[in-house]
Amino acid sequence: MALVCLFDEAVGLDRFQLGGKGYGLVEMSSIGLPVPPGMIITTEACKKYYAQGGRVPEGLFDELKQKLAKLETLTGRQLGNPEKPLFVSVRSGAPYSMPGMMDTILNLGLNEETAVTLAKRTGNERFALDAHRRFIQMFGKIALGVNGQKFEDILESHKQKLHLKQDTDLGPAELRLIIQEFRDLIKHDTGSELPRDPWAQLQMAVKAVFRSWSNPRAVEYRRYYKIADDLGTAVTLQQMVFGNMGEDSGTGVGFTRNPSTGEKKLYGEYLRNAQGEDVVAGIRTPDSLDTVTAGLRSQIVDVAGKLESHFKEMQDFEFTVENGKFYLLQTRNGKRTAQATVKIAVDMVGEKLINRDEAISRINPAEIDQLLHRTLDPKANVKAIAKGLNASPGAASGIAVFDTNEAAMLGEKGERVILVRPETTPEDIHGIIRAQGLLTARGGMTSHAAVVARGMGKAAVVGCSSIKLDPDNRFFKTADGLIVKRGELITIDGSTGEVLLGNVPMIEPELTDDFRTLLGWADKSRRLGVWANADNPEAARKASEFGAEGIGLCRTERMFNASDRLPIVREMILSEDEEHRKAALRRLFPFQLSDFKDIFRSMAGKPVTVRLLDLPLHEFLPSAEEVMMIMEDQRSKHASASAMEQEARLLAKIRQLSEHNPMLGHRGCRLAVTYPEIYETQTEAIIRAAIEVRREKGETVRVLIMLPLITNVNEMIFLRKHVETAAEHVFAEMGEKIGYKVGTMVETPRAALTAGELAKYADFFSFGTNDLTQTTYAFSRDDAEAKFMSRYLEDKILTDSPFETLDTTGVGRLVRMAKEEGRKTNPHLEVGVCGEHGGDPRSVAFFNEVGLDYVSCSAYRLPIARIAAAQAAIAKSKTVGTV
Amino acid sequence: MALVCLFDEAVGLDRFQLGGKGYGLVEMSSIGLPVPPGMIITTEACKKYYAQGGRVPEGLFDELKQKLAKLETLTGRQLGNPEKPLFVSVRSGAPYSMPGMMDTILNLGLNEETAVTLAKRTGNERFALDAHRRFIQMFGKIALGVNGQKFEDILESHKQKLHLKQDTDLGPAELRLIIQEFRDLIKHDTGSELPRDPWAQLQMAVKAVFRSWSNPRAVEYRRYYKIADDLGTAVTLQQMVFGNMGEDSGTGVGFTRNPSTGEKKLYGEYLRNAQGEDVVAGIRTPDSLDTVTAGLRSQIVDVAGKLESHFKEMQDFEFTVENGKFYLLQTRNGKRTAQATVKIAVDMVGEKLINRDEAISRINPAEIDQLLHRTLDPKANVKAIAKGLNASPGAASGIAVFDTNEAAMLGEKGERVILVRPETTPEDIHGIIRAQGLLTARGGMTSHAAVVARGMGKAAVVGCSSIKLDPDNRFFKTADGLIVKRGELITIDGSTGEVLLGNVPMIEPELTDDFRTLLGWADKSRRLGVWANADNPEAARKASEFGAEGIGLCRTERMFNASDRLPIVREMILSEDEEHRKAALRRLFPFQLSDFKDIFRSMAGKPVTVRLLDLPLHEFLPSAEEVMMIMEDQRSKHASASAMEQEARLLAKIRQLSEHNPMLGHRGCRLAVTYPEIYETQTEAIIRAAIEVRREKGETVRVLIMLPLITNVNEMIFLRKHVETAAEHVFAEMGEKIGYKVGTMVETPRAALTAGELAKYADFFSFGTNDLTQTTYAFSRDDAEAKFMSRYLEDKILTDSPFETLDTTGVGRLVRMAKEEGRKTNPHLEVGVCGEHGGDPRSVAFFNEVGLDYVSCSAYRLPIARIAAAQAAIAKSKTVGTV
Repeated sequence: MALVCLFDEAVGLDRFQLGGKGYGLVEMSSIGLPVPPGMIITTEACKKYYAQGGRVPEGLFDELKQKLAKLETLTGRQLGNPEKPLFVSVRSGAPYSMPGMMDTILNLGLNEETAVTLAKRTGNERFALDAHRRFIQMFGKIALGVNGQKFEDILESHKQKLHLKQDTDLGPAELRLIIQEFRDLIKHDTGSELPRDPWAQLQMAVKAVFRSWSNPRAVEYRRYYKIADDLGTAVTLQQMVFGNMGEDSGTGVGFTRNPSTGEKKLYGEYLRNAQGEDVVAGIRTPDSLDTVTAGLRSQIVDVAGKLESHFKEMQDFEFTVENGKFYLLQTRNGKRTAQATVKIAVDMVGEKLINRDEAISRINPAEIDQLLHRTLDPKANVKAIAKGLNASPGAASGIAVFDTNEAAMLGEKGERVILVRPETTPEDIHGIIRAQGLLTARGGMTSHAAVVARGMGKAAVVGCSSIKLDPDNRFFKTADGLIVKRGELITIDGSTGEVLLGNVPMIEPELTDDFRTLLGWADKSRRLGVWANADNPEAARKASEFGAEGIGLCRTERMFNASDRLPIVREMILSEDEEHRKAALRRLFPFQLSDFKDIFRSMAGKPVTVRLLDLPLHEFLPSAEEVMMIMEDQRSKHASASAMEQEARLLAKIRQLSEHNPMLGHRGCRLAVTYPEIYETQTEAIIRAAIEVRREKGETVRVLIMLPLITNVNEMIFLRKHVETAAEHVFAEMGEKIGYKVGTMVETPRAALTAGELAKYADFFSFGTNDLTQTTYAFSRDDAEAKFMSRYLEDKILTDSPFETLDTTGVGRLVRMAKEEGRKTNPHLEVGVCGEHGGDPRSVAFFNEVGLDYVSCSAYRLPIARIAAAQAAIAKSKTVGTV
Repeated sequence: MALVCLFDEAVGLDRFQLGGKGYGLVEMSSIGLPVPPGMIITTEACKKYYAQGGRVPEGLFDELKQKLAKLETLTGRQLGNPEKPLFVSVRSGAPYSMPGMMDTILNLGLNEETAVTLAKRTGNERFALDAHRRFIQMFGKIALGVNGQKFEDILESHKQKLHLKQDTDLGPAELRLIIQEFRDLIKHDTGSELPRDPWAQLQMAVKAVFRSWSNPRAVEYRRYYKIADDLGTAVTLQQMVFGNMGEDSGTGVGFTRNPSTGEKKLYGEYLRNAQGEDVVAGIRTPDSLDTVTAGLRSQIVDVAGKLESHFKEMQDFEFTVENGKFYLLQTRNGKRTAQATVKIAVDMVGEKLINRDEAISRINPAEIDQLLHRTLDPKANVKAIAKGLNASPGAASGIAVFDTNEAAMLGEKGERVILVRPETTPEDIHGIIRAQGLLTARGGMTSHAAVVARGMGKAAVVGCSSIKLDPDNRFFKTADGLIVKRGELITIDGSTGEVLLGNVPMIEPELTDDFRTLLGWADKSRRLGVWANADNPEAARKASEFGAEGIGLCRTERMFNASDRLPIVREMILSEDEEHRKAALRRLFPFQLSDFKDIFRSMAGKPVTVRLLDLPLHEFLPSAEEVMMIMEDQRSKHASASAMEQEARLLAKIRQLSEHNPMLGHRGCRLAVTYPEIYETQTEAIIRAAIEVRREKGETVRVLIMLPLITNVNEMIFLRKHVETAAEHVFAEMGEKIGYKVGTMVETPRAALTAGELAKYADFFSFGTNDLTQTTYAFSRDDAEAKFMSRYLEDKILTDSPFETLDTTGVGRLVRMAKEEGRKTNPHLEVGVCGEHGGDPRSVAFFNEVGLDYVSCSAYRLPIARIAAAQAAIAKSKTVGTV
């Protein structure tokens, strides 16, 4: 394969061979757009360079020389020829854009002689000298490795001497002096003269571009953006065009559509008599493309149209006008806001540029998250004072409040409050509900605060361990020593984990018509059902609004820890025998009944999967420390013996229930094996609620009862029997029946490994991929994220956190096995996912491929899941098509 | 199939059809031994009875009637015939012995008339009347359901009236009165007369025996001994013989060998003129079989020989002599001590009764555990005052001591001490070493106390939550309110979990020559290697003594938490940077070097598998509470600012390191990914020690370095590189090399699921089945055992604790997968097990079947593992042979 291709020889190669920049040039050139001629050294050459330990591939420069000769013929100019000098740019260009990370050398071909020719040709000596000066500076720094600051220092000293402000104010005489000083610097620092032969320079420039692929900035950038290290960069050689040749020259950038709004309207800027870097330097204000000459504008409009109809995408292009002649120097897909992405995709379908599947496929689902939450205005110039885990997306401002009751009280009065706590417990719910957002010093992505906030769509930053929090004295202190007291205004960004001082301007979310249209198309393309995780009627309504086809996970913990129920729940836990326990459960019954009715009403006949109690009982009790403080207080106040006795009993129970590893302890269905009456009461409330709502509304209520943490088919058999008995009890009482299903979470490796057996007794499986990941890896999510996950990602031992994107190799293997073996023994088995992976696009693609029936995720991630599910289906149908 | 078989029709049926008792009778009868004639209603009938909800299977009684007619012909007697009455016993008999749990009716066939005939025939009216009285009492209670106490009360009132002490003192007149009162009682309580027809009585007796299969005692017994509920009982009908017909009659029991010692010498007792129940009543002292008449003795010796050559097992038989005629009434394999089991098995090989494989196969490996530990003398009449978990077998007595330092001090002086603590930590090691045994109130089978004690072969009872422990005031209180103070003598039995008051007599363990012979045979039969878990030189020596072929798990935690190292380890943990951490590690190096050298020396060239550090760092720090108490103390004593600062730093570090679920946290290889220098130093110490010991002894040291808690091939690659670099470093320093292997624990589901990848970089796998069980089930062992395991076993949701016997369905599936996929990518992969299952016989059988290379267990379980491995190989070869 050729390592060097002239533009017209490169047609058909892709961006992995040509780099993004080269690909754009080749494509534009191929459709007749005015591109200065040039050639591309493909990424292949760079890869060989590295494979050979930093040596230029054999024959590369021979090939380059041959192709250069063709370019010289084509342009009628020659590199280094004093009469008809050819000037070229030597640019890096990787398959994925890495802006500013690698090196580029312009104006190659300029030397003492050709600079004179250029001056003559343009009639602008200053321009020619300055171009020469720029070349030496770039070449010295990049190809010869001279410290760039030294060139700047020389330039600066001349400006200071003459009291000049801008480089452009330097006249020809000064520029000559500077050029000489640059040459002296190079000789002094490298021990040799600057090579005079442009061909030698060109070879050095190519090598410099290769080297720049592995400079520390570029490596760091790739690590951050997860770009593979072995892609290599291409090198583009192109004839220089100059926008600074006078008033009929200039340079500009254009977007084929508005990148902020997506509106189909040419957008961009133009600076007369200038080169690209002058735009960056910002000496003069560029003109809007609306104000350029009609001739130029019509050329740009024409180009924009051609670009879009070729690339089928909004383009961001750079152009230069040299003496009235228009040249395109670059084009690429334009960066845009999420809102613009959606609008453009929908509009282009209307314009028949693309079809609906293509529209869906080009959305980055992760990006549209920002359309669903308030976000900080990116233009606001603010600095974070601390950073924690981005536990629940969205941004919120309010006064810092350190006490839950106070937060609830202020919130109720309409005050905007950020609740700041070491961590939260179910008892903080009333404060969380009334707060705008949540900031905790401890806890990870599955901490109480994080889970509750995500469920409510409320912004939260958790595990912000860099702050020193003193809730008693109502302040926190940042790592920099800044003290934030109660009542001070702060802002948290739950999408980035940042904490900021003051009230930061925000952008409100907008569910535009375009977005709805796109989601509608997605729904038609996808195979996977998209359900929601919702624990209460508001969340259920939100889920319906965002397109949920059912509830895949309705946790019942909140029905136990709301403040009006907690005392009864505690009574139940402290009961010494079954009789008292049952009595307490009876008193909880009405609350549960009304909660379930509300949820069934708001889902209006769509399926609702209720997970029976999962949390360990100690989660419903206060901490030992809290009780000990109360007891101390009682002692000092000489409280009654019976009151003290009560607290002592509570403390004993807390100690008795405490566990070494609560995640692996007495929770989930294990609770119900010990106390079957808990699930019995829950089942009775569910079934009664379903029948009552059916009577009310006359429409079927679809109930799925889900058993958590099953590891053993005997648990399934034992508890299914209890559930069925409880349901029969209600049927008998109410004189009518209702259909319902009983299924299990698959959230332990053993459940997955014995899925064939479980499926004989389960109507459905729901993969709890959070816990399944924790147990498969033996990772406690909180501990892993606090202690070692970042190190694992940095060292590339993990490429992604398995809690964000499903580990398809290990956990995914269990998912696949369980689904296949479950379906084998029970062909009617419904199989879904209710872990947070249900809202992660890459995981959704996997679940689609494995053949699950649905994914379930929090309401605010539903649009993402709908898009991702459609993309997965489209990608799969393409694969099937080509195989 | 016939439901009723005469003895000679039943030959060839097994104990599942005939029950244990029936099987013995049929076999004896078939080889011509003198057995009173009879028949058996098979278990099939009982199973049908229950399958039909407690109804007698159709045709059963017709069949019974036919067979009864044959028996009547055979004996020349008839049921209920006043002239020639037949008397029969109706006995229950289950496939597995359930002594005393089910019901039996004797003397059926006796009524007013036949009693007179019996009186005449025997010339003993009192005997006949008493036999009749006994029949009515048994029948009334068992077949008619009259409260048995009421019969006893009538009997008692007559004895009191006459001031008699024994039932046998009652004369014919009284017996007649009593019989009438029994009849009246039956009529009063059941509303009907006692049926007079013996045939009707027989049918009722059979039904009563069926019913007794499911009486609460029997159900409870089966639950406890894990006997299936659906086996059913057989019913044996047999002609009565009477040992109480005069001086030429009698009854006795015999063992073909001594059940305590196993010595080949007839052993048993004989009581003249008595029935079996008289022996039980203990009125007269029976004679030893050594003193009976020569004629009788020669008959018994003859029978014993025939029984052993038929059953190839030591027999426990019952016989009756009726008017000089000898009858056998029962035979079964004799219960015996573990020591006798071994001796008999070995002797029988010598006698060519059985072969070596049969000798090995009949040992119950779990039973021989008692041969390896001191045990409480079962004859001692003692009562437990509390019961905890049987964490480490063996028994120990000593004074209760509640403080570790005191225990260490007293132990050093030679005092026998039981250390009683809430739980133990590494800092208690010095006290544990000097104590005879360990009693803790908290913690489960994997708590620190349990693991350490098992490793040392020291008796321990842990998690004894029923005691209220007050270590500060140096006492504990039992559930019964008994207070045990410091210095009181107590005994713990680590094999049962019992705590006893005082010094209980004990039996010392004995590794007899017979046992060594048997183990030697086992070694020849087994395929699996048997290695040991040993952390220190003493344990390694013990392991060698008990036949270990290598060390499969040498934990390195003890090298860090011994008291002379702990301060340095803490310094390491508190280091703020790598440099200080490395300096602390350097200071630990000499300790580790000498530890490894000691272990390598004691294993004399056998392989030693060293597991690099696994415990989370916070395990090496004191608890937050302890530090807070020190700080309080400092405050009150106005300690120096620097001292207080130091404790504050320590406290901050403890809090920083604390975890929600330490089992799933920052431990194992995750520590080394964060701080590679820890494993590097360990590797250097291991390799240097190996080379130095090789220089010393001139023989190869076989080193295996094992990485814990691997979940990801990248961890393996990353850490293997660090290990190799460290080893190369030592090679260079010492100028010589040594071979070594690097492998991984497979103790997380993900390691098993990705074993094919891992095996590319691992020389060996060692299944850590403890942790693998914890993660596969999402069971924290300590929490599960404290909170819900007993309930799971009671409800038969689990048949065994998966921590004692490997869960072959779930965990075992992972083991099999990992072994197979590992071997596929690395055919030289060595695969073993180092979890505690390596010493569990049923698990060993599974590991043999899966094809692992070796099991590794604690030294004291090695003989069990050797026997179990041999049994597995023998069983497998049989299966292979028959397939």
